[in-house]
Amino acid sequence: MTRRKISILGATGSVGTSTLDLVERRPDRFEVIALTAAKNVGPLADASVRAGAKLAVIGDPALLPELESRLQGTGCRAATGREALAEAAAGEADLVMAAIVGCAGLEPVMSAIEAGRTIALANKEALVTAGQLMISAAGRSGATILPVDSEHNAIFQCLADNRSCDVAKLILTASGGPFRSWSPEQMAAVAPEQAVAHPNWSMGAKISVDSATMMNKGLELIEANHLFGVPSDRLDVLVHPQSVVHSMVEYVDGSVLAQLGSPDMRIPIAHALAWPERMETPALKLDLAQIGSLSFEAPDLVRFPALRVAREAMEAGGAAAIVLNAANEEAVASFLVRRIGFLDIIRTVEEALARTDAAAPHSIAEVIDIDRRARALAEDLMSEMAA
Amino acid sequence: MTRRKISILGATGSVGTSTLDLVERRPDRFEVIALTAAKNVGPLADASVRAGAKLAVIGDPALLPELESRLQGTGCRAATGREALAEAAAGEADLVMAAIVGCAGLEPVMSAIEAGRTIALANKEALVTAGQLMISAAGRSGATILPVDSEHNAIFQCLADNRSCDVAKLILTASGGPFRSWSPEQMAAVAPEQAVAHPNWSMGAKISVDSATMMNKGLELIEANHLFGVPSDRLDVLVHPQSVVHSMVEYVDGSVLAQLGSPDMRIPIAHALAWPERMETPALKLDLAQIGSLSFEAPDLVRFPALRVAREAMEAGGAAAIVLNAANEEAVASFLVRRIGFLDIIRTVEEALARTDAAAPHSIAEVIDIDRRARALAEDLMSEMAA
Repeated sequence: MTRRKISILGATGSVGTSTLDLVERRPDRFEVIALTAAKNVGPLADASVRAGAKLAVIGDPALLPELESRLQGTGCRAATGREALAEAAAGEADLVMAAIVGCAGLEPVMSAIEAGRTIALANKEALVTAGQLMISAAGRSGATILPVDSEHNAIFQCLADNRSCDVAKLILTASGGPFRSWSPEQMAAVAPEQAVAHPNWSMGAKISVDSATMMNKGLELIEANHLFGVPSDRLDVLVHPQSVVHSMVEYVDGSVLAQLGSPDMRIPIAHALAWPERMETPALKLDLAQIGSLSFEAPDLVRFPALRVAREAMEAGGAAAIVLNAANEEAVASFLVRRIGFLDIIRTVEEALARTDAAAPHSIAEVIDIDRRARALAEDLMSEMAA
Repeated sequence: MTRRKISILGATGSVGTSTLDLVERRPDRFEVIALTAAKNVGPLADASVRAGAKLAVIGDPALLPELESRLQGTGCRAATGREALAEAAAGEADLVMAAIVGCAGLEPVMSAIEAGRTIALANKEALVTAGQLMISAAGRSGATILPVDSEHNAIFQCLADNRSCDVAKLILTASGGPFRSWSPEQMAAVAPEQAVAHPNWSMGAKISVDSATMMNKGLELIEANHLFGVPSDRLDVLVHPQSVVHSMVEYVDGSVLAQLGSPDMRIPIAHALAWPERMETPALKLDLAQIGSLSFEAPDLVRFPALRVAREAMEAGGAAAIVLNAANEEAVASFLVRRIGFLDIIRTVEEALARTDAAAPHSIAEVIDIDRRARALAEDLMSEMAA
C-alpha cells in the first residue's frame, strides 16, 4: 500500500493513544499529519514530536502558549480553535481517526466527511445524534466511514463485499453488563461502584454505566441503523456474556458471519487503519479451545428497558435520538454522584423523550442546540424527581 | 443477475437433489442444461423432464435404452459415456455442480476446470487426490472453484475480499464425532453401528465413519491446503461438538471471522449457486439464544491419529494423499463389514503410506492408477492383519 496520511482527532484519549501505538509501529505504512487534544497539552506535544506531525491542535485556547513553547523548533505547528480543528480533520490527511468524545467531535467529523475523506469513526455521538446528516453528506462527498466501535467494526467485516439486499439481519452482541442476571429489586439498589465494573472491557465510568443499563446497545442500534442503512426490524440484539463474538450478520441463505477476537480495541482500530488491507497488532490471539465455551441468550426488555426505549427513539426519528443521548448522559452523571438511583436513569430518559417533539436537525449547530435543550430538560426532570 | 446456466453432475445424490430443489425454486435465476447420474435412471429422467434439461447422462451404458425411452418426446437428449459426461461438465453451462462421489468424479471435474467454468465442488476426491493438477489447471483456464463442503464453504465466505497475505490461519471446525470423549479401550471395541451414528449431520456410512475417526477432517485439511493455498503450519483443527460454527479464518490483526448456520447442506450449496450474490433457502434460521452455548476444545491427536497421519501425508506431498484416501476407503469398507476393527482403519492407512513412494501424478489417469494400486495394497495389508 502507499503510505497513508493520517490525522488523529482526540490523540491523547484511549482510542487515540492506541491508534498512535499502531501507527508508530509501521512508519512504512503511515505518515502522521495532525494530532489534536482537548486539554492534555503535554502528551499532545510529546506525541506530535514523536510521530513527526506537522500540526498539533489544542482545544483549550488558554493552553496554546504552552503548546507553542513545547513545540518550538520541532517543525510542528501549534494551533487552537475551530478552523485549526477543521484543518486537522479536512486538510492533508487521507484517513481521519475521529476519536474526540462527545458533541465536541461532531463539527470536525462533519468537516472530514464534507471533504470526502476516509473517516475511522470512534466518536459515538456522530451517528447517534447526527446520523442522517452525516450519512447524506458522505453520500454527496464520497467520504468513506469505517466504524471503530467493536460491534460495528465486526458487522463491517462480516458484510465484506456482500450486497445489502442479501442481508437478513444485523445482530449486535451485548455482554449484558454486570447485572445481566440480577432481579429488578436488586437493580433498584445498584450503587455507582457496582455499575462501573464491566466484566470484559476496561472502559470509562459513563460507558460502563451504559453497559449496565444496556443503553450502550440501544445507542449502537441507532448507529447501525444509520451506518448500514438497515431498518429496525432487521436489527437484533443478542446477549453474549463473554464478549468474544463482537457482532454478526445473518444472510438470506441462512449463513451467519461473525467476527470474533480478544476484547482489545487495537483490533478494530487496526482494521480501520489498514482497510481494505490488514495490519498486524500486538493483541492477544483468540484461543477458543482455552476459552472453552461461548453462551448466548435473548435480551430481557423488561429488566433492560433502555433497549426498548432506544429502539422507539430510532423508529420515531426526528430529534429523538439526540434527546435520548443527551438525557442519558445527564442522568448517568447524576447517578454517578448518587443524585438519582440506577433505575431513575431510564425513567429520566423516557420522560425527556415524552416531553420533546423537536424536528430532525438540518445542521450540526441545530444538533448541538437540541442536545443542549435536552440536557436542561433532563436536569429539570431530575430536580422534579428529587423534590 | 443474469440467468445462470447450470449442469449438475451427480443429480440424484444428496447434494444433487438439494441443488435441484434450490434451482427449481428460482427459474428466474437458473436454467438447467444437463443432469447426470450413475445408475438412478428413473429419478434422473424425472428430474431432467421437470427441470427442462437438454441433456441427461447415465453412467451405466446398460441403462441408456431405459433412459431413452423415458425421455422420448420430451426434448431432453439421453446419453452415456465419457464424452457425454464431458459435454455435461464442459458444454453450455456457466456453473457446474460437481457432486459425483468418488474417483468417478475426477475426469468430469477436470473437464469443467479446463473449460474455464465456475465449478461448485462437492466431490471430495478431486482436491484430495488431484489438488495440484486441478488448481494449476484452474490457474491456466481461469476456472473458479467454489467449495460446497460446509467447512470450506465457510472459509471461502470468511475470506471474502481479504488478501491471502493477511490470513494468519484457517481453522477447520470438527464435531469430534461420536467417540469424542471415549477412552482408547472403548474405541478399540467400536462396532460399525456405533460409528455411523453422527451427532449433527445426517450422512452416509462411509463419511460417518470418517467423522468418527476424524479422517474426514484430515482429508479436509488437504483440500483446504490446495483450495486456499495455505501451508500446513497455518491450518488448524478445532473441535466444536455442536457443528454450528462451520469454520473460521484468523487474520493478522487478531480478527477471527466465522461462518455459522444450521447443519443444512442447502446453505453452502445455495452460497455456491448464487455467488457472488446470495439466494434464499428454506434452511432453518440459526437461533443462538435457543442453542444457548457453543463449546470448543483442542483435538486429541493421540486418540485421533488420523489427523496426524493426514497432515503428514499433506506435508509429504507427491502421491501420499491419494494413498491416504484410497487406503482409508478400503479400510472403512472392511470395518463396516466387520472384517477389521475400528482402530485397524488408521493402522491400515498408515502402513499403506509407509509402503508407497509414488511420485506426484501428472494426469487424472495417473491419479486413478495410483488410487487403484493403493486399494490393492490396503487389501493385502488387511489380509495380513487378519492372518
